[in-house]
Amino acid sequence: MTTEQDTTADLACLQELLQGDDVQPAIDLLEGMHPADQADVFEALDEDDQPKMLALLSGEGIAHLLGHLEDEQRSSVVEEMPRATLARVLDATDYDVAVDILRAIPPAEAVMTLSQMSTAAEVTPLLGHEDESAGGLMTPGYVTLHRDMTTAEAIAYLRASKPLAEEAYYLYVLDATNRLEGVVSLRELVVADAEARIEDVMQAETIAVTTETDQEEVANLMQRYRLRSLPVVDEGGVLSGVITGDDIMAVIQEEATEDMYYMAGLPGDDSLHASLLLSARRRIPWLLLNLAAMALAGGIVALFEGTIADAAALAVFMPVIAGQGGNAGIQTVTIVVRGIALGEMEKGDAWRVLRKEIVLGVIRGVLFGVLVGAVAFAWQGEWAWGAVVGGAMLLNMIVAGLLGTFIPITLRAVKLDPAIASGVLLTSFTDVLGFLFLLGFGALAISQLT
Amino acid sequence: MTTEQDTTADLACLQELLQGDDVQPAIDLLEGMHPADQADVFEALDEDDQPKMLALLSGEGIAHLLGHLEDEQRSSVVEEMPRATLARVLDATDYDVAVDILRAIPPAEAVMTLSQMSTAAEVTPLLGHEDESAGGLMTPGYVTLHRDMTTAEAIAYLRASKPLAEEAYYLYVLDATNRLEGVVSLRELVVADAEARIEDVMQAETIAVTTETDQEEVANLMQRYRLRSLPVVDEGGVLSGVITGDDIMAVIQEEATEDMYYMAGLPGDDSLHASLLLSARRRIPWLLLNLAAMALAGGIVALFEGTIADAAALAVFMPVIAGQGGNAGIQTVTIVVRGIALGEMEKGDAWRVLRKEIVLGVIRGVLFGVLVGAVAFAWQGEWAWGAVVGGAMLLNMIVAGLLGTFIPITLRAVKLDPAIASGVLLTSFTDVLGFLFLLGFGALAISQLT
Repeated sequence: MTTEQDTTADLACLQELLQGDDVQPAIDLLEGMHPADQADVFEALDEDDQPKMLALLSGEGIAHLLGHLEDEQRSSVVEEMPRATLARVLDATDYDVAVDILRAIPPAEAVMTLSQMSTAAEVTPLLGHEDESAGGLMTPGYVTLHRDMTTAEAIAYLRASKPLAEEAYYLYVLDATNRLEGVVSLRELVVADAEARIEDVMQAETIAVTTETDQEEVANLMQRYRLRSLPVVDEGGVLSGVITGDDIMAVIQEEATEDMYYMAGLPGDDSLHASLLLSARRRIPWLLLNLAAMALAGGIVALFEGTIADAAALAVFMPVIAGQGGNAGIQTVTIVVRGIALGEMEKGDAWRVLRKEIVLGVIRGVLFGVLVGAVAFAWQGEWAWGAVVGGAMLLNMIVAGLLGTFIPITLRAVKLDPAIASGVLLTSFTDVLGFLFLLGFGALAISQLT
Repeated sequence: MTTEQDTTADLACLQELLQGDDVQPAIDLLEGMHPADQADVFEALDEDDQPKMLALLSGEGIAHLLGHLEDEQRSSVVEEMPRATLARVLDATDYDVAVDILRAIPPAEAVMTLSQMSTAAEVTPLLGHEDESAGGLMTPGYVTLHRDMTTAEAIAYLRASKPLAEEAYYLYVLDATNRLEGVVSLRELVVADAEARIEDVMQAETIAVTTETDQEEVANLMQRYRLRSLPVVDEGGVLSGVITGDDIMAVIQEEATEDMYYMAGLPGDDSLHASLLLSARRRIPWLLLNLAAMALAGGIVALFEGTIADAAALAVFMPVIAGQGGNAGIQTVTIVVRGIALGEMEKGDAWRVLRKEIVLGVIRGVLFGVLVGAVAFAWQGEWAWGAVVGGAMLLNMIVAGLLGTFIPITLRAVKLDPAIASGVLLTSFTDVLGFLFLLGFGALAISQLT
C-alpha cells in the first residue's frame, strides 16, 4: 500500500544517477514511479538533465509522461522530438492528449504526424471539436451492445474483446443505425440473470449531451445527477463518444482556476510554475488596462483639485468610500460569477438576485453611511461633513450591489465569460463613482466644509 | 434519451396542481423527476407549498430529496419533521447525508434519532470523523474479496450478494485481520480466466489514505493519479471505507467556491440562493473589518493633510498608485492561493516563487513607475513630480509581489486557509503603503512640488 508521493527524494536520487550516467538504476527508479510523479520530477530537472531522462523512457513511457506534463513543458518536449518518434508516442497516449498535442503543433506537421499514426482513424474525428466542448472531452473508446443479446452473451463478448479499464464500467446499447438506445452498467450485467435480455436490464432514459455542449455544462450535469460517465451523441442521436468522471474532475479544477484567474485579471496559462517570461508577458497587458481604469479615477479627482485644496480632509475619506464600495461589490460579483458557473442562475433568477443585492446595498449603505458620517461629523465638527461623507458611502454601497450583479449578468448576456474582468470593472466603477459622489457633494457643500 | 432539465415548466405545473390539491397527478409528476430536479423545484416553491410537496413524497422520496437540497433548506425540512419519521428517512439516505443531518441537529435529538435507525451500526462510526476529512467523505459500503478466491467464485458471490451500483466497480481484497491487501476492478474480474485466483489479478500496490487526510488532499490525489475511487484505512491499515469519484467532484467544486469566497471575504454558506437575512448577517461583519483597514489607509492620508492642501494634485495619483498595487498584488495572491490549493506548492518552492514574484515586481515597478512618472512630469512640468509619483509606483509594485506571495504562504504556515482574507489583507497593505510612499515622498519634496 502506498500513499501520495513526495517526489523530493526521487528527484535528488535521479539527478545523482543522471549526472553519473548510471543508466540501469535510473531506468529502474523511473519504472517504479507513477507517470504523475515522473512529470513532477521532470519539471524540476535542469534543462540539461531533461533530455537524459527522456532518453531513458520507452515510447510508451514518454506517452504516459506527456499526459501529466503542464502545457509549457509538454510543448518543449514535443518540439525537440523527431516527427516519426512523435507519431509512435502519440499512438500510445490517451486520445485527448494526442489531440491536444496535434492542435498545438503547426498544421502541416500535424497532418504529417497523423499520417504516420496507427490510431489516426480514432483521433482524426476528435480534432474537429472545440477543445472545451463535450466533443473535445470525449473518448471514442467505449463498449457497445445490442438490445437482443442476453447478459451471458454480453459477458462472453467482454471476456473475448477485453476492453480497457477506462471503457468498461458502462456499456452502451445501440440500434442498427448506431443511435443510442440505453445504458447498462457492468454491475447490472454481472448481477442479472444470465438469460435476461439487455433490453430488460438496460436503462432506456439516458442523460446524454451533444458534441457541442460546453464543458462547464457537462461538469455541472455530471455533478448534479452524480453521473460517472456521460454519453455524447451527434445531432442525429448517433453515439460519438463517452466522457468519464476522471476527465471531468480535471475540467472542474480548470474551470474554477480559470474563473479565479479571470476575476484577478490573469490568463489561464499562468501558474505557480510558469516561467518568469511567460508570467510577465501575461500579466503586464492586463495591468496596462487596469492603469487606464485607474487613470480615469485619477481624472475624476483632478476635476476636483480645487475642492481638495480647500478641504484636504476629503482626501482622507477617498480610500474609505472607494475601498468599502469595492469590497462590498467584489462580494456580490463573486457570488454571482460563481453561481453562474455552477449553473445555479436560471432564467428569471436575474431580477430576483438583483433585487436582493439592491436591498442589501441599501442596508449596508445606511449602516456604513451613518457610521462614517458620524465619524466625519465628530472629527470636523460640522453637520455638512457627516452628510457629504455619509451620503457618498450610501450611494456607493448601492452602486456596489447593483453593478456587482449587473456586470457579470451583462457579460454573460453578450456571450462572454462572466468572470472576465468583472472584478476590475467593478472596482473601477466603485472608485470612479465613489470619488464623484464624495468630491461632488464636497464641491456643492464647500462653503459649509471650510 | 433526455438531457439537462429546465425545471421552470415542472415548477409551474406543480404549483398549479398543489394549489388545486390534485394529489395523484402531482405525485405522478414528482415521480417522473430526478431528485436533483425535485430539489430545484422545492427550493423555488412558496413556504406554504413546500410542506404540501413533502406530503406527496414517500420516506424514500424525501431521503433522495434531502441528498440534493442546499444546507439552509435541508435544515428547515429536518426541523419540521417528527423524530420517528426522521429515523426512517435517514435509513434511506446515503450515509454521508445522514451523517451531515445528524451533526446539524441538537446532540440529544441526534442520539435519540440514531437509536431508532436500522443503519445505526454503519452511520455511528462515521460521526466521529471531521466533515472535511477522508473519514467524513468515505462510505462504509464496499465489496470485499479474499485473495484465495477464484474469479468465478468472486462473480458468483457478487451475483448472490447484489451490491449497490455505487459500491461495485472496485472490489477490495482484505487479509484475515481486514487489512487492505489489494484492489481488483470488476472489469478485471469479468475479463480474467475463470479459474484465476484473486491474488493473481489484483493490484497489490494500492494508493490509499487514512481517515484523517484532508479532503483537499484527497481530491488532489484522485485527480493526480486519475483514480475513480480511493480506499480509506485506519492507522493499522484496516479498511474503513471508500471514497468515490462522484463525491470528489462535489468536494472539488466546494473547495474552489470556498477559496473564491474567502478571498472576497465571504463565508462558505452564502450563495446566490441564500436568504437576504443570511447574506446580510454573513457579509456585514466582514465589511466592518474591511472598514477598519480602510480607516487605517484614511489615517495615513490624514497624517499628510497639510501636504495635500499644499499640493492637491497628489490626491489625483492616490487611486493610481494604490489601485495598480492592489491589482498587481491580487494577481500574485491568486496564483499562489490556487497553486497551494492544487497541491503545486511543495517544500522549497516558497523561496523560488518569492524570488520570481519579486523580480516580476521590479519589472512591473520600473515599467509603470516610468510611465506614470512621465505623465506626472508632463502634467506638472516639474522633475520632482515625476520622481515622487514614479518612485511610489516602483516601491508599491515591489510590495505587491512580495506581500502577494508572503501573505498566503504565512497563512498556510500558521495552519490557516491561505485564501482567508488574503485578498483584503493584500489590498489594505498596498493602499496603506502606497499612500505612505506617495504622500511621504510628496512631503519630503514639497518645496519642489509647489
